[in-house]
Amino acid sequence: MKHVYFFGDGKAEGSADMKNLLGGKGANLGEMTSLNIPVPPGFTLTTETNIVFFENGNKLPGEAVQETKDAMAKVEAIMGKKFGDPENPLLVGVRSGARQSMPGMMETVLNVGLCSATIPGMIKLSGDARFVYDAYRRLITMYSDVVMEKAEGIEYEDEEQAIRPQLEKLMDALKEKKGCKEDTDISAGDLKQLCEDYKAKVKEVLGKDLPDDPWEQLWGGIGAVFQSWFGKRAIAYRRIEKLPDDWGTAVNVQTMVFGNMGDDCATGVAFTRDPATGDPNFYGEWLVNAQGEDVVAGIRTPNALNQHCKQPGQNDMLPSLEEKNPELYAQLVSIRDNLEAHYHDMQDIEFTIEKGRLWMLQTRTGKRNGLAAVRMAIDMLNEGMIDEVTALKRVKPVQLDELLHPMLDPAAEKNANKLTKGLAAGPGGSIGKIVLNSERARKMVKENPKEQLILVRLETSPEDVDGMSAAKGILTARGGMTSHAALVARGWGKICIVGCSDLDINYRERIVKVKGRTLKEGDWISLNGTKGIVYEGKVPVVDADPESNEWYKKLMDIAEKTKRLGVRTNADNPADAVLARQFGAQGIGLTRTEHMFFGEDRIKAMRIMILSDTAEQREKALAKLLPYQRDDFYGILKAMSPYAVTIRTLDPPLHEFLPPMDDEEKINEIATELGVDAANVKERIVQLHEFNPMLGHRGCRLGISMPEVTAMQARAILEAAAQLTREGVEVNPEIMIPLVGNARELENQTKIVHDVAEKVKKENDLDTLNYKVGTMIEVPRAAVTADEIAQHAEFFSFGTNDLTQMGCGFSRDDSGSFLPHYVDLGIYDKDPFQSIDQAGVGGLVKIAVEKAKSVKKPEDHFHLGVCGEHGGDPDSIYFFHKVGLDYVSCSPFRVPIARFAAARAALED
Amino acid sequence: MKHVYFFGDGKAEGSADMKNLLGGKGANLGEMTSLNIPVPPGFTLTTETNIVFFENGNKLPGEAVQETKDAMAKVEAIMGKKFGDPENPLLVGVRSGARQSMPGMMETVLNVGLCSATIPGMIKLSGDARFVYDAYRRLITMYSDVVMEKAEGIEYEDEEQAIRPQLEKLMDALKEKKGCKEDTDISAGDLKQLCEDYKAKVKEVLGKDLPDDPWEQLWGGIGAVFQSWFGKRAIAYRRIEKLPDDWGTAVNVQTMVFGNMGDDCATGVAFTRDPATGDPNFYGEWLVNAQGEDVVAGIRTPNALNQHCKQPGQNDMLPSLEEKNPELYAQLVSIRDNLEAHYHDMQDIEFTIEKGRLWMLQTRTGKRNGLAAVRMAIDMLNEGMIDEVTALKRVKPVQLDELLHPMLDPAAEKNANKLTKGLAAGPGGSIGKIVLNSERARKMVKENPKEQLILVRLETSPEDVDGMSAAKGILTARGGMTSHAALVARGWGKICIVGCSDLDINYRERIVKVKGRTLKEGDWISLNGTKGIVYEGKVPVVDADPESNEWYKKLMDIAEKTKRLGVRTNADNPADAVLARQFGAQGIGLTRTEHMFFGEDRIKAMRIMILSDTAEQREKALAKLLPYQRDDFYGILKAMSPYAVTIRTLDPPLHEFLPPMDDEEKINEIATELGVDAANVKERIVQLHEFNPMLGHRGCRLGISMPEVTAMQARAILEAAAQLTREGVEVNPEIMIPLVGNARELENQTKIVHDVAEKVKKENDLDTLNYKVGTMIEVPRAAVTADEIAQHAEFFSFGTNDLTQMGCGFSRDDSGSFLPHYVDLGIYDKDPFQSIDQAGVGGLVKIAVEKAKSVKKPEDHFHLGVCGEHGGDPDSIYFFHKVGLDYVSCSPFRVPIARFAAARAALED
Repeated sequence: MKHVYFFGDGKAEGSADMKNLLGGKGANLGEMTSLNIPVPPGFTLTTETNIVFFENGNKLPGEAVQETKDAMAKVEAIMGKKFGDPENPLLVGVRSGARQSMPGMMETVLNVGLCSATIPGMIKLSGDARFVYDAYRRLITMYSDVVMEKAEGIEYEDEEQAIRPQLEKLMDALKEKKGCKEDTDISAGDLKQLCEDYKAKVKEVLGKDLPDDPWEQLWGGIGAVFQSWFGKRAIAYRRIEKLPDDWGTAVNVQTMVFGNMGDDCATGVAFTRDPATGDPNFYGEWLVNAQGEDVVAGIRTPNALNQHCKQPGQNDMLPSLEEKNPELYAQLVSIRDNLEAHYHDMQDIEFTIEKGRLWMLQTRTGKRNGLAAVRMAIDMLNEGMIDEVTALKRVKPVQLDELLHPMLDPAAEKNANKLTKGLAAGPGGSIGKIVLNSERARKMVKENPKEQLILVRLETSPEDVDGMSAAKGILTARGGMTSHAALVARGWGKICIVGCSDLDINYRERIVKVKGRTLKEGDWISLNGTKGIVYEGKVPVVDADPESNEWYKKLMDIAEKTKRLGVRTNADNPADAVLARQFGAQGIGLTRTEHMFFGEDRIKAMRIMILSDTAEQREKALAKLLPYQRDDFYGILKAMSPYAVTIRTLDPPLHEFLPPMDDEEKINEIATELGVDAANVKERIVQLHEFNPMLGHRGCRLGISMPEVTAMQARAILEAAAQLTREGVEVNPEIMIPLVGNARELENQTKIVHDVAEKVKKENDLDTLNYKVGTMIEVPRAAVTADEIAQHAEFFSFGTNDLTQMGCGFSRDDSGSFLPHYVDLGIYDKDPFQSIDQAGVGGLVKIAVEKAKSVKKPEDHFHLGVCGEHGGDPDSIYFFHKVGLDYVSCSPFRVPIARFAAARAALED
Repeated sequence: MKHVYFFGDGKAEGSADMKNLLGGKGANLGEMTSLNIPVPPGFTLTTETNIVFFENGNKLPGEAVQETKDAMAKVEAIMGKKFGDPENPLLVGVRSGARQSMPGMMETVLNVGLCSATIPGMIKLSGDARFVYDAYRRLITMYSDVVMEKAEGIEYEDEEQAIRPQLEKLMDALKEKKGCKEDTDISAGDLKQLCEDYKAKVKEVLGKDLPDDPWEQLWGGIGAVFQSWFGKRAIAYRRIEKLPDDWGTAVNVQTMVFGNMGDDCATGVAFTRDPATGDPNFYGEWLVNAQGEDVVAGIRTPNALNQHCKQPGQNDMLPSLEEKNPELYAQLVSIRDNLEAHYHDMQDIEFTIEKGRLWMLQTRTGKRNGLAAVRMAIDMLNEGMIDEVTALKRVKPVQLDELLHPMLDPAAEKNANKLTKGLAAGPGGSIGKIVLNSERARKMVKENPKEQLILVRLETSPEDVDGMSAAKGILTARGGMTSHAALVARGWGKICIVGCSDLDINYRERIVKVKGRTLKEGDWISLNGTKGIVYEGKVPVVDADPESNEWYKKLMDIAEKTKRLGVRTNADNPADAVLARQFGAQGIGLTRTEHMFFGEDRIKAMRIMILSDTAEQREKALAKLLPYQRDDFYGILKAMSPYAVTIRTLDPPLHEFLPPMDDEEKINEIATELGVDAANVKERIVQLHEFNPMLGHRGCRLGISMPEVTAMQARAILEAAAQLTREGVEVNPEIMIPLVGNARELENQTKIVHDVAEKVKKENDLDTLNYKVGTMIEVPRAAVTADEIAQHAEFFSFGTNDLTQMGCGFSRDDSGSFLPHYVDLGIYDKDPFQSIDQAGVGGLVKIAVEKAKSVKKPEDHFHLGVCGEHGGDPDSIYFFHKVGLDYVSCSPFRVPIARFAAARAALED
């Protein structure tokens, strides 16, 4: 087993396809090296070594130690320096790098190799004592924090007791004493003393000295990075991103190059295309005389890389690299072109300029938001860089969500009270209450999942991920488009504005001052994440308009011809049907008829129907309801013509329609109408109470107890269909019987529908009338006996909501008391009401599909669909595709995502 | 296709193995004829002919008509008479006969062939005009009722308008006018006139004449019997007995022999052994000068057949056949021996003596109650007549129920107020309110299924079957042990007393006078059906003592060695465990721990536990509960040693333990204990409310939310086990985690148990401690993912109650509003909570068994059981055997039935 992979000077043992072993960063450093791109030489300790490290009691095995030493020798040879050499010392950085980027979630130790012995040599080499002591100060801070404290598992009740804030206090005190505004204002002598003070403080707080031996520093650094795989933040991030714990991280040990060694030094982060919009221009930021972390941490507002990416009012006055050093910029552009051509995808790169020489420190596939993902996919397709299949694969179904995201209403925005402007880091519009602390944000949303919050911070750090996840939007005072906040928000499709320097945030008093105004925590603000504008108060939010996006339209065209699954919508009225058609729905998978009973006149007739004692009274009430229902169905069938419209007969327990017991007026009204006492009506309401209404008298059980209800609904549907047929409109109603658990239930209800159909045909003088009768599969028993049930059905539609409730034994209304805890514990990977539980509930679906198909022939044209809310969830859609359904159905706004997810599913086949 | 099968004079076309085609009666008439037993010659129209008859628009097909005529010619040849011949007329009876006896549920027409033309010849032949007119009167009554009215489908709102009661009124009027007490007192001349009056009344009521042509009578009779297959009573009976509608009935046309042609004539019904007790003596009843229906209808109290079966106080003064005619009796005994030897089973026979000559009219396997079935099976086994397998098959599992039936408490009975005594027709003791009308009985029990009723009637008729089914016991004033009431009660294992002639029943006033006392409908009486004694009021009822029955013990010994399934019991306390062991249980399949929390001290600690906010408070409360639980488990484990005891951890939703919201005292007490406001406690109670508690926070979900509860219960079980182990008592506790739907839930809970076990072992200084951890399979998802769950389980126990609730989507508490209707409609054959729904819920069980077995090896000793209430239902037990479970578990009193049903299931393999 090889533990260490070397790279440098155009030769590398690793390559981009070795991400599992070397991590993304390590693999790409090798790849870039092989591409003759200037990469500081170094080596990677593998992810497997990390596993061995844990198995070995958090110690490197002997072979790895030896291989590290050998690789270091190669680096020394190339650089002509020696690690720990007093005259010509080599310094290295020690960085993490997992299979998949986990930005900022693990640890880094830089400037390793600086010690009493090498400092003088470094000063001589660099000619800059101030720089060397600054680098040493950074090493002390990182090392004491990461290696001596965190890796040792030391925890503090009060975070101020940790080493890092104590060191920072020393620094702040020095700056105040010396009247320095910026770190760069501190003199070399002061920094030297500060380093001594730091070391003394480390000894005081942690009880031991900072190692002064370069190799000891290196082993400590490597171990700490390995251990950070199981750091709190890394675990939390993996939980959110659903990454496994057994990957481990690689460790990259790489020659230090310095962007902070003077004004001929710089550091930068760039994207080969704009990750926020997909604009194909080179996009990036840089800082003169700085280390890479300064850009990412958002402590200073960086310069734009080129003219194109200057942001008005932000960094338009600072010189771009293109202006400042056209030659180096040209070299960078050439590397950019090289990388995109090589990787066929947008790259996120880090570079450092040390004394006029350009070094590439990292390349990786760049994160992008949905808007950019769509545009890049189609642009690269048009550029011939990728094919259609790859274009589809470049966009995650959930990313489309962003294009369909609501925006602030442009009309209302004109008159809204603009507070300030920042960098537009996450598109879309969102409103919420200000919250200044991530932990508070997390708690508030946990208590009330509907809470709308905007997390407002100076900058964000990996510690804030939970709060960022909980908030609707993120607003920071510092940082650029490549800052932590921007990066994370982009990954999650969050509305985000960064670098909004007008904000003066006081965490202690929980207020934000902006241009003289004072906002308190809890005050409402509105973000336009597409333009970067912040408004006071609540600005109305409007729906998205993806149809105006040409890239989106092209992508959806490709998706449309790729997918096999049909996509229908759930709609209870003509307006929703029209909207869904605009989104590309081809049919209705679920029309709930009970919503139609809640109009003022209707509910009364419905109540009388339910509370009737005799079939005669009941039929009288039903006769009143018939015309309403017929009109509803007429409208829906017409709006969806010629596509199929699946209409479910009455489903909920009857007591849902009843007046509350204390509504004397309504009860008296009903009693009068029925000619009985109010007490009588009340008694009937009490009788209708159920202990477990979910498992009670509902669904087809109602239609079997009261066949006249099914008959009325069938009549309303079929009369509407007959009328439209006579008008020359093609209709395809599908009457769906809910909650069937037994073939004989369906047989019973089907007969009623067919009998009514025969009558309606005669009354309307029609020879044929299109309609089908089928059932929902939502009771576990129905899945298990689907072969029997299919004998009486022309279609099945899986009601996965109820199938989840009964299959898992979870009442949707009550599971809040334990289900979130279950997801936390990993008992379920996801909330099974959001994404179908594939093994369990999905297992029932699979059984039903197999059983149904075993008794149906192609000429039966039997079809299978799903109408639960899972029909709009990409993972679930993938499952439904795999299991062989014919269509999914979802709410109108989810239709494009469902269509796209269906195409993605077809690609996976 | 042959429609008609002849039998007579030692030759028969049919035989006993042709029951499906010829019906039971027809097949056995053929068999008896072939055995040279004297059977009046005749022929059988097949059941297939009945089907053809219905398909043919309720008409006999031409071939059947011709075959009938041919068969009649053979009968005429044997008898030397001619059908319709004025000089020497042949008369025939037309009787139904289905595959399986449906006593009295279909129609009969006797004396067919009597008409104006043949009456004089018959008078000459018989020398008894009175007899001939009486026979004619009977023909008119039957024919007008059965053929002209019922077969025509005529129905009356008031039953008094039907023809039969109107004819009976004419008869009653004549008797009153002539001062006749019995029918036999009416003179020939009066009877002749009565026949004329009858015919006029028939014409008046039904609008047409009684057919006077013998062949027209015959075709009418055959058609009416065929049609009676779909008569109301026949349909109702088939529904109760779960017989299919498509069998059809055969029709037997047979030479009439008359038991009422004078005092050298008689008729009788006998059983080759006593059907009520199993006593191996010949048992029967007879009446001089009577027709067979007189015995069955119970209109006259019959004589005993022999000395042995005389009932003290009933018919002990009337001469037995043995006394009256030893020669004929000897012939009958010889036939009886012949039949038992031939059929290897107890036969129910009918005979008629016509002018000193014995004729056998029927033999069939005799119905018997459970007590008799058990005794006969073992006696016949001992006699070498049958083998052990046959002996087991002779007893239906439900029949054992009767031996386990409660009895009146013998001690209390001594001091009870005895009303009267009748014939002990159905053993066991039962108490109930008097009800005098079957329809009322049916309705009352429908409204309140717990209603305890005793149906008290003069006699019962097939119209009473619904009422008999509804009542706990049956008491009649007339009839013998072979009367309708006795027959039906025996079949159903009902407590029954018949022929209780002291009863003077007034249906109109709804009172019963007995020895000067007057009881009203609704008054309580108590029946000792084993001795035939009726008591006033409620006599305490005590449990059965089957162990005193030697035949039962022998049968259970055979069952024990035959069965494969283990039988455990459900028991929550040591007393039940001891009782169940006496019944033969080998282990406990379910100990519910929640019942243990309802003691006065315990419930308080439980409530405090539930309402605690902190783990500290909760653990304090749990510490209080621990010793109680440990003591409970100690007792149960000890009582069941060395068998396994399956203990389920906490299952029900917590709110079941809470005080009602208006119990201020209890709430204040809890608040004080917890140091919070009462309002606070109330708020928590409201929070714990669930919409669908069945699908809510219960089962292992509690143990996962509050691991300390599982830990406490595990500790209580394991400490008890450790203590017993130290005392040298072998224990095998099986800790069962309820409501698992997901393997990770079980993994979570199993870990808690194992951790506690390690601690308990150490604390008790034990190297090993017997225990297993497994789960209930009661959530559909668990069945579908049983392979995953089995990885963490040492056993499964199917909780078929909840599996039915979730699998079918039926809340047990709410399904009363539709489930009975479902069973009526045939959507479910049986209530799925009583007998497992084999296709649906059983399908889930099957899936789970297959999946579990796919991942377990024999050396895992993984076992599968069932602990739902289905564990005591014979049909379900058969299913569980077939599907491969290892044991069933049921309530102590069901254990013998389960053991026996398990043996029966093993035989079917």
